[in-house]
Amino acid sequence: MNQDSRSAGTVRPGGRTARVRAAVLEATQDELMEHGFHGLVMDHVASRAGVGKTTLYRRWGTTAGLVIDLMKELAEQSAPHANTGTIEGDLRAHAANVLHGITDKRLGPTLEAMITAATCDGGAADALRAFYVRRIDEWAECVDLAIARGELPPGTDGEEVIRAISAPIYYRLLVTREVIDATVAERAALRTLAAARAGAFV
Amino acid sequence: MNQDSRSAGTVRPGGRTARVRAAVLEATQDELMEHGFHGLVMDHVASRAGVGKTTLYRRWGTTAGLVIDLMKELAEQSAPHANTGTIEGDLRAHAANVLHGITDKRLGPTLEAMITAATCDGGAADALRAFYVRRIDEWAECVDLAIARGELPPGTDGEEVIRAISAPIYYRLLVTREVIDATVAERAALRTLAAARAGAFV
Repeated sequence: MNQDSRSAGTVRPGGRTARVRAAVLEATQDELMEHGFHGLVMDHVASRAGVGKTTLYRRWGTTAGLVIDLMKELAEQSAPHANTGTIEGDLRAHAANVLHGITDKRLGPTLEAMITAATCDGGAADALRAFYVRRIDEWAECVDLAIARGELPPGTDGEEVIRAISAPIYYRLLVTREVIDATVAERAALRTLAAARAGAFV
Repeated sequence: MNQDSRSAGTVRPGGRTARVRAAVLEATQDELMEHGFHGLVMDHVASRAGVGKTTLYRRWGTTAGLVIDLMKELAEQSAPHANTGTIEGDLRAHAANVLHGITDKRLGPTLEAMITAATCDGGAADALRAFYVRRIDEWAECVDLAIARGELPPGTDGEEVIRAISAPIYYRLLVTREVIDATVAERAALRTLAAARAGAFV
């Protein structure tokens, strides 16, 4: 999740359509920061973005539609995996990125909104799955590199390693609602690495 | 999460107040099965439970209030941890219970509703945390027994072991929205066990 925290709305300049989209997605993130997904109101996004309500409804339809488009934009912008030269460094970087994404004052509420929208909207659920599957696939490459370097057993499932590091962090965020800090992230990385070295991901 | 799938509404018979509560909680679970938390409507619960709307609003207030009370009831009913005699058996049983809870046609939608309610209601978030912390605490005892038997290193953090097994299952449920089956659950148990044996939870 190593993404510019002011991600939506700063890239891909273009014609009027692109400018409207950038303004709408930025306003959506602003509103999510302040009110969360359950407090997201189409009319407030329209006025914050300075676009007409008709345009907003015609192009995005619902608040779930806004969040889906935000997910697509964030997926496009997502940064490549770390390449520190060691699997421990790369997996720590992955955990730190997940932590950063969740705790960032702008990206965090966006991710939570994406997850919440997915509980009530099939299109949002599909976009959420696509967003994370893409991130997992990108970072799994670190494991392939580690296998090639002889750091992990051949056949280690990189996607599962990456999921296993994200999972305890999101579990605390969404289920047990416990504190999430650098220690939680680091432990997730090191415990998963211990299991991977023991061959548990082959 | 080894709980009777027809949990709310079948226990603790008592006076009229208890009977009303049982009927309301059962109707709430029925409605959640059919419509999810976002489709939960107070008036529908009242008519399904055969209780007056005034009673329902006075005692539960909102749909989040209904879900909070359901969480409290489920927490009361939660079954003790497994005691199979080996840590592998106990951790597999824990993973199987989590899987059962999520996939049960009655309990699954209830758990999802609890998690969704917690995204928009502080009281629901508190109740959710309390519900899971209690389950984690209960099952952590399996790890203490394993340490006493010499199966795991002294100082292994039982609560973290239990969380680590639940986490990949809930991560797929809520975040990546990928398939959850017995293989996913078993891998969560065995990978966590491998990390625990390697001393990664000390």
